[in-house]
Amino acid sequence: MLAQCFHELTIPTRGRGLYEITQEVGQWLARQPFQDGLLTLHLRHTSASLLIQENADPDVRRDLEAFFERLVPDGDSLFVHTLEGEDDMPAHVRTALTAVNLSLPVRGGRMALGTWQGIYLWEHRRHGHGRHISLHFLGE
Amino acid sequence: MLAQCFHELTIPTRGRGLYEITQEVGQWLARQPFQDGLLTLHLRHTSASLLIQENADPDVRRDLEAFFERLVPDGDSLFVHTLEGEDDMPAHVRTALTAVNLSLPVRGGRMALGTWQGIYLWEHRRHGHGRHISLHFLGE
Amino acid sequence: MLAQCFHELTIPTRGRGLYEITQEVGQWLARQPFQDGLLTLHLRHTSASLLIQENADPDVRRDLEAFFERLVPDGDSLFVHTLEGEDDMPAHVRTALTAVNLSLPVRGGRMALGTWQGIYLWEHRRHGHGRHISLHFLGE
Repeated sequence: MLAQCFHELTIPTRGRGLYEITQEVGQWLARQPFQDGLLTLHLRHTSASLLIQENADPDVRRDLEAFFERLVPDGDSLFVHTLEGEDDMPAHVRTALTAVNLSLPVRGGRMALGTWQGIYLWEHRRHGHGRHISLHFLGE
Repeated sequence: MLAQCFHELTIPTRGRGLYEITQEVGQWLARQPFQDGLLTLHLRHTSASLLIQENADPDVRRDLEAFFERLVPDGDSLFVHTLEGEDDMPAHVRTALTAVNLSLPVRGGRMALGTWQGIYLWEHRRHGHGRHISLHFLGE
Repeated sequence: MLAQCFHELTIPTRGRGLYEITQEVGQWLARQPFQDGLLTLHLRHTSASLLIQENADPDVRRDLEAFFERLVPDGDSLFVHTLEGEDDMPAHVRTALTAVNLSLPVRGGRMALGTWQGIYLWEHRRHGHGRHISLHFLGE
């Protein structure tokens, strides 16, 4: 019999960068009364993203950050929306270029992640924030 | 007892730009016989996107548009597929760089959007189109 | 009565490029005992993507590839993570810029794809790989 659970995860960040949340998500999942189903994550912000990426070499995260800093430079004179700081509009653009939702099948209590996949919260602002992620698990 | 509803929303656009559809989606949701579940949106086109973005300062939308126009310029000589106009291939690239699917938990009849999040249809073509969005709500 | 099915699809690639998988996904769907619901695809890799794109003119895929090769050039001196080849870090960046998850409503056994939409596996590495996609169908 299918049923559903809801949760909100709050992740504190210390400024721009990728924060792995695979374990936090997996721990919540492990406490739910069912094992097989569909997990959905939704990040409730417009200047951070949810990303599935390589969880082995930290240089991958460093290079992702370097690429996005070059592609969407802080303080770009193209931007009119600058009241909230020179990293604010780049943060919105980075969010548009990535995603705020993820959907993952779950079997036997485990998310269908590949061997090298981790789930990351990507903070795009220079200062730290408390970021809220809505979790939904529908399963049996 | 979980059950599901389907709908198709048609959004007329007046050319390139971001059109907020949060209200249209919320109104359909409010008419469904259940309050808690998972909402999925799928845009049935390859030259427009679904985006969750800031719903406060309109300059954010202006700047997003400006950034994408610079990143993927119309009439770029790189492109071979030009028969449907110089904005057509850029529209496909913008769609690839963003998303056509969204998944949102719903509780008490409300989507799990953050305070500053709105749902937008992003028209990437210069001319207006009628854009079709498939909605699916699974809940109880 | 809602129920769910799981499957894993393995797609062999022959190096960088877009491989249409609409038919493989549709065939699996057609074998399931229900017709209406929600289909989720998750690609279990960090150097390939799932993309919904135009399925008519092959030049669209050629131009998408050309755009991404220019945007994220192989061998870019910005990158530190180069051990796995000069196309490896660009593959991770392309994955971040696109998606590894898709969610599609299904009615009467048919995915809610638009007339011109096909589902593609986008291989970002120069060499071929066997790529694994987790499928989940929840329906009735």
